[in-house]
Amino acid sequence: MAETASRPERPEPRYGNRPTMKDVAARAGVGLKTVSRVVNGEPGVTPDTERRVQEAIDALGFRRNDSARVLRKGRTASIGLVLEDLADPFYGPLSRAVEEVARAHGALLINGSSAEDPEREQELVLALCARRVDGLVVIPAGDDHRYLEPEIAAGVATVFVDRPAGKIDADVVLSDSFGGARDGVAHLIAHGHRRIGFIGDQPRIHTAIERLRGYRAAMEDAGIPVEEEWMSLGPTDPDRVGQATETMLGGPEPVTAIFAGNNRVTVTVVRVLAGLTRPVALVGFDDIELADLLKPGVTVVAQDAAQLGRTAAERLFRQLDGASDAPERIELPTRLIKRGSGELPPAG
Amino acid sequence: MAETASRPERPEPRYGNRPTMKDVAARAGVGLKTVSRVVNGEPGVTPDTERRVQEAIDALGFRRNDSARVLRKGRTASIGLVLEDLADPFYGPLSRAVEEVARAHGALLINGSSAEDPEREQELVLALCARRVDGLVVIPAGDDHRYLEPEIAAGVATVFVDRPAGKIDADVVLSDSFGGARDGVAHLIAHGHRRIGFIGDQPRIHTAIERLRGYRAAMEDAGIPVEEEWMSLGPTDPDRVGQATETMLGGPEPVTAIFAGNNRVTVTVVRVLAGLTRPVALVGFDDIELADLLKPGVTVVAQDAAQLGRTAAERLFRQLDGASDAPERIELPTRLIKRGSGELPPAG
Repeated sequence: MAETASRPERPEPRYGNRPTMKDVAARAGVGLKTVSRVVNGEPGVTPDTERRVQEAIDALGFRRNDSARVLRKGRTASIGLVLEDLADPFYGPLSRAVEEVARAHGALLINGSSAEDPEREQELVLALCARRVDGLVVIPAGDDHRYLEPEIAAGVATVFVDRPAGKIDADVVLSDSFGGARDGVAHLIAHGHRRIGFIGDQPRIHTAIERLRGYRAAMEDAGIPVEEEWMSLGPTDPDRVGQATETMLGGPEPVTAIFAGNNRVTVTVVRVLAGLTRPVALVGFDDIELADLLKPGVTVVAQDAAQLGRTAAERLFRQLDGASDAPERIELPTRLIKRGSGELPPAG
Repeated sequence: MAETASRPERPEPRYGNRPTMKDVAARAGVGLKTVSRVVNGEPGVTPDTERRVQEAIDALGFRRNDSARVLRKGRTASIGLVLEDLADPFYGPLSRAVEEVARAHGALLINGSSAEDPEREQELVLALCARRVDGLVVIPAGDDHRYLEPEIAAGVATVFVDRPAGKIDADVVLSDSFGGARDGVAHLIAHGHRRIGFIGDQPRIHTAIERLRGYRAAMEDAGIPVEEEWMSLGPTDPDRVGQATETMLGGPEPVTAIFAGNNRVTVTVVRVLAGLTRPVALVGFDDIELADLLKPGVTVVAQDAAQLGRTAAERLFRQLDGASDAPERIELPTRLIKRGSGELPPAG
């Protein structure tokens, strides 16, 4: 069995050494145009020639270079999604919803994460544009998106979600962070609390500021002066949030309730409160898995993450279908879900 | 203020109409080679000419076509990650770990999801290859990866993670699903259980089968014959899992303990058990957030998702750095974390 002799020759597996159409043409003993016709399914090739070309393609491991084809054709039937944190569960349903809309439109979804770094966001967005995505759904990390102007002018559809674009006019789909936080804090006030803490994300993040604004508005509506020590904004890692929580709960006049600015904050606050003997009320922005099974259940201001993703993606495909609406800001309502922690009265 | 007159002319924002180097050359009144030199930062251009070219670039909104450049240069400094479900929290830390390793190597990470569909996986993998990623980390949905052979032969580094490749030889990084499940079930047996249910993912998924095998091994080691009704494999949506749980807990001889095959299953089983008056023991594969704060805490067989991602990505960059090791199967140990639910004795 002369197996070795009949085994197709493969190029060495290294970069920049993919077999080309020219290699296929040489091996099949035909012209370049004939190979091109076979590869692109065009007519004008005899069955016998087609078989010879196909054999050469198989033997060499040739694959049509889609990047080159993309450059010629313009459209790639793919869209990009830029997240800020791959590990934040909030983005799971949002990403999946964007993907489902993309699939319904016959497009692939390609994701990437900025890791909350504006430079990384720009690098990733431009890398996706260079790979010829038709459009982009962006959860921005930065606050200056003028770098996107040439891409948008060249026809890349763009929708921002969760946070608005900076310094450019673009579609944006948001949750009502201000209204949601105001309602959540008003709920705590209605249950008798006056000393209420707010723990949120970093102050350069739009949603963090909007939710803080909602907190302040609810306190002002109730005529409660806010003390500086009741507000803590910063990174949402467990160490920082844990310390902030303990500080607010220590001292001679501790807060009796906490409003947590997002799901990462809520999880850590829940953990600190579980170690206390006295009850402290809690309302968290964002729903969290298993919140209903904790004792007490965690009262939350829930965003509809899937609806955010779906709305943004549908808006994106409207742009791609040629709609020329002016950029719009779409704000989705939040929903207060009462489970126990937000209905606790002030301790003592 | 004749603002209109000085406003740069922009091309109509539509596909296939990006300004080219030729447009820049025409506007600047220089040759194509000169534009190319400026764009690529090559020497041999006077400051004055460079300024004129730069002005033309700005006015036209020209951007170097990175797809074309990629085609010439070969390397793109990007890797791809193919997940099976964007919304499964297990993949959050895994993705982030891959991203951190990629970043440490100066590469971007581009993600996509197969949504547990083998065709979609292939489509996505080939789309990423066509966009010239240097390498791929794949959590496979399918069981036949021969479609990847031409890409691997052409130099695309490939590492599978969480589940092995099918019908090709490739690096794979796995958790010890068999051993982890066997230990978890043995733990339930050690606490007096004999009627133990197993609820897992679909039988075509490698980890589901491995964990079922672990369950069977532990039962066999203890000399406990397994009844068919104690094993339920299928989709992990709440409806299917909820029904399976209730079936096992109903009837004249209900199970006294459940082994849940992954985090999606565990979450639903916990929810069903929370509605019962009698205690049922539970050990779940995969850790879940807040598992320690539930009453009882949820005992789990924890995988190190971040370590899986890190190991796979490091292996990928070893390949890209030219290591020519034979494909390897790397298995990471799991860890039993006792929190209460797995230490409950049989009820009644």
